Amino acid sequence: MVVNTPSGAAENARTHNEPLAQSTALGGRFSFSLLKEDPATLGRRGRIETTRGAIETPVFMPVGTQATVKTLHPEEVRATGAQIILANTYHLMLRPGVDLIREAGGLHTFMNWKRPILTDSGGFQVFSLAANAKVTEEGVTFASHIDGSRWKMTPEIVIDLQLGYGSDIMMQLDHVLGLPAERAAIADATERSARWLERAIAAYKTRDGVNSRSVLFGIQQGGMEKDLRIESARRVASLDVAGCAVGGLSVGEPKHVMAEMLEASTPELPRDKPRYLMGVGSPEDLWHGVARGIDMFDCVLPTRTARNGGLFTPDGRISIAKTRWRDVHAPIDETCDCVACRDFTAAYIHHLFRAGEIFGMRLASIHNLRFLARQMEEIRAALDAGTFAQAFRAFDDRYRPVASLTVPSDPTQRAGASLP
Amino acid sequence: MVVNTPSGAAENARTHNEPLAQSTALGGRFSFSLLKEDPATLGRRGRIETTRGAIETPVFMPVGTQATVKTLHPEEVRATGAQIILANTYHLMLRPGVDLIREAGGLHTFMNWKRPILTDSGGFQVFSLAANAKVTEEGVTFASHIDGSRWKMTPEIVIDLQLGYGSDIMMQLDHVLGLPAERAAIADATERSARWLERAIAAYKTRDGVNSRSVLFGIQQGGMEKDLRIESARRVASLDVAGCAVGGLSVGEPKHVMAEMLEASTPELPRDKPRYLMGVGSPEDLWHGVARGIDMFDCVLPTRTARNGGLFTPDGRISIAKTRWRDVHAPIDETCDCVACRDFTAAYIHHLFRAGEIFGMRLASIHNLRFLARQMEEIRAALDAGTFAQAFRAFDDRYRPVASLTVPSDPTQRAGASLP
Repeated sequence: MVVNTPSGAAENARTHNEPLAQSTALGGRFSFSLLKEDPATLGRRGRIETTRGAIETPVFMPVGTQATVKTLHPEEVRATGAQIILANTYHLMLRPGVDLIREAGGLHTFMNWKRPILTDSGGFQVFSLAANAKVTEEGVTFASHIDGSRWKMTPEIVIDLQLGYGSDIMMQLDHVLGLPAERAAIADATERSARWLERAIAAYKTRDGVNSRSVLFGIQQGGMEKDLRIESARRVASLDVAGCAVGGLSVGEPKHVMAEMLEASTPELPRDKPRYLMGVGSPEDLWHGVARGIDMFDCVLPTRTARNGGLFTPDGRISIAKTRWRDVHAPIDETCDCVACRDFTAAYIHHLFRAGEIFGMRLASIHNLRFLARQMEEIRAALDAGTFAQAFRAFDDRYRPVASLTVPSDPTQRAGASLP
Repeated sequence: MVVNTPSGAAENARTHNEPLAQSTALGGRFSFSLLKEDPATLGRRGRIETTRGAIETPVFMPVGTQATVKTLHPEEVRATGAQIILANTYHLMLRPGVDLIREAGGLHTFMNWKRPILTDSGGFQVFSLAANAKVTEEGVTFASHIDGSRWKMTPEIVIDLQLGYGSDIMMQLDHVLGLPAERAAIADATERSARWLERAIAAYKTRDGVNSRSVLFGIQQGGMEKDLRIESARRVASLDVAGCAVGGLSVGEPKHVMAEMLEASTPELPRDKPRYLMGVGSPEDLWHGVARGIDMFDCVLPTRTARNGGLFTPDGRISIAKTRWRDVHAPIDETCDCVACRDFTAAYIHHLFRAGEIFGMRLASIHNLRFLARQMEEIRAALDAGTFAQAFRAFDDRYRPVASLTVPSDPTQRAGASLP
């Protein structure tokens, strides 16, 4: 289903430059074009084209777990600069159910989001949120976290669900292990994930996926074992998928470990396909991820943190409910163009949080999504200009994460020669 | 401070007809024009002009207790058709405090609502929400419902607070009794409220209120005692206020009792000043209130009900979380032009409520506010056209309130001769 054209055969509508590499799927209705590679890091500038519009990469995808980016109207999400959002296969399967979504005309119509949607496979939720997950080679059975009812997911069911939603980008079912785990168990789950990917690809073909609007991404696993990561990346790279995801990271490991895993494995992924680091979305992790060759990110962090009063600023994350913001009659961030900063003061948003007002959560969510979108705009501009390493250093010098326990190795010090 | 010009001397910018009656305050910067009286009921069509824009009456005012109409951006509130909103003196005094609001440039700037704001006096909240309220002739002391701290309100303090907020319409401090109560206690509280009004007027003059942008309304009390209501109305009518409110109704009494109280007392109020029925806002009560001579209403009902999934439709109130809405892939109300009905289906909003998503509360709040605003538009158009009684009957024939225990007497059967 995926045609690789590493030499960049297809004409790109938005630039006169030929892409460095390109892959297509859906008979050309889906494509990824690698537009530029950073000389100093693994950073890449690219563009995904879908039947629902283009996505400039690197990109951050806001999360709309239950067919809503929490507290926000889709038009507000779009206005923050979002190009694509993520929704959760597991949650939507349980409620409202795939039949209802299909009946509604698909997920885009149901939730009134007209641009691309990526759905995860549910693998992560089944192993983290549901109860009594039991894995066999066929798939996984588990109890709903809502009402305890028993459900089953197989690689094939998960394809059916996502085709039913009408996702633009579907994820394979993978076997996600809680860490720490024995190396043997990690190897076993990683190999099972690879076999499940082969079944997902077969199911995608059987279900005539190429005539849908949905493409399939595979997922690399391997825990914190470098060699398993590399092996898994090679396996996913060898298969007929439209993109390659990195799963099972950002699950509590030190930041330098995540950095090592990425540095070891992203060079094994195809240059001409998009790479998606699942569940990563702090401002600092986005820079680090891009520097290690990642094109796509998603995370609940910006919106969840927002609902707890945590707001991103160029200097770091602040807690708006703290007394120091009580009488700041100025925007949270003078340089920000979001609704929260354009229409309201820090003092007002502080008041909303102290008074327990939902509107505060909305403003904070808008601000954080806009912050990340602006950051990605800055990252893309720096990659375009060939100044990513400097931009990264400038960010890193100024931004103070609330909870940075360890400092990852500096990816801007990597030689350009190590690029794939 | 108020100049009565019952013959309608002032030129009205929006109509070529002379008003039937008119009063002005703030040296002409505030005015009420009575434009039309309904031939069959006590219904009135009017217009209030303030320094922050005009208000067509009858009008419903959404409530923004803590300087936010819960869950909504001020632009969304405005888009529902709101002309003026209400905020609560008591809540804002406790948090964030009048000094902070004054520092922010006033309540309008603080919350970014550029149109008129009416603030209540806190009387109702002190006696319903705060603890250990102790009344003396001077005022009332009580404990904050937030942290138990002791506070005092006097007629003068309440004027100072509202001038500090920069309210367009301020309410006097009144003594609100919990019912049932002895007639003697009701009479006592009613007389005290009248004395407090005299002190409020004096304080307003001392504080140079006429050079502010704020006018003062008096409040009629009297419990469910018709003669006390009439006496209280006459007392308020005799004083130098810009408008007359009816307090202490819609506190649990049967609907026909509220109707009787209004029918007895509104004819005692000046024809040339706006009349405000406090805390009333169900669709049916708005029609009944207008038919009994009321120009202004406020209530948390539409937004509070919305947050619980209760939605107004032309046929009555529905509960969107009920299973019958699960697969209704059509707007809640095909005739409605609100964001909820324009952009989403009943099935989607049902899903949001079942999934506990805040965005559902937002959509429901927008829908209910728009429903009431459209209803008021319909009421005003019917009053303009002289067809209010028919419109009321058409509404009453179709709309089914959820909890209508008693049917008020039919105000459309009243003779026009009984008008003041």
